[in-house]
Amino acid sequence: MRRFDSAEAETYVSGTLNVGRWEQYGLGDVMPFGAMWYTVPAGQSSPRDCHPEHELSLVVSGSGTIEASDRMTDVEQGNAFLLDSTEAHIIHNRSTEVPLVIFSAYWMPRGSEPPVDGQ
Amino acid sequence: MRRFDSAEAETYVSGTLNVGRWEQYGLGDVMPFGAMWYTVPAGQSSPRDCHPEHELSLVVSGSGTIEASDRMTDVEQGNAFLLDSTEAHIIHNRSTEVPLVIFSAYWMPRGSEPPVDGQ
Repeated sequence: MRRFDSAEAETYVSGTLNVGRWEQYGLGDVMPFGAMWYTVPAGQSSPRDCHPEHELSLVVSGSGTIEASDRMTDVEQGNAFLLDSTEAHIIHNRSTEVPLVIFSAYWMPRGSEPPVDGQ
Repeated sequence: MRRFDSAEAETYVSGTLNVGRWEQYGLGDVMPFGAMWYTVPAGQSSPRDCHPEHELSLVVSGSGTIEASDRMTDVEQGNAFLLDSTEAHIIHNRSTEVPLVIFSAYWMPRGSEPPVDGQ
């Protein structure tokens, strides 16, 4: 059994976000998806993102508004949300005081071409 | 984009647990893993469980102690923990007042036989 804490992860800055990729845990042979922690600072929003992977997220702490498919959807700590393949999205932190921390798992749609590295 | 809230899920009682399987969301063609919400009531523990799937969990709310491989590991709201295939485990709710709510994703190890239904 292994425990993972977003507050202890190695992270890097990407635009407005602080990102902790799960590659650091060496689970590529175990997990059938990629994963990351990311933090949207208080009062800020993520860059607009759009990618071929489906993405399932859980709100670890804070509260946000997900802008996707011309809709704004509020999410609270503990909520999950699923973004479809190629569904553009912006993650807004609704709080001006508390960081928004999210766990995301992402994977290519079934039947899609595998990446060049065969993973 | 779809939002999921454990408090709004259809659940059933399984031993001491209240379980909300993600099959109710109809995502079998999208997700490369099974998923569930489950709640360990205040002051209680899950039945001992052991299964061939790897299992990645996130603590949605509450705090617990994971008993696995002869070790006790405390987990807090927001922590993730990964149980290996066939690693027996018991989930203890450390609180006598607050339910422990967990999101879990589970999948068969790479290279293992697919289930009979081909999923």
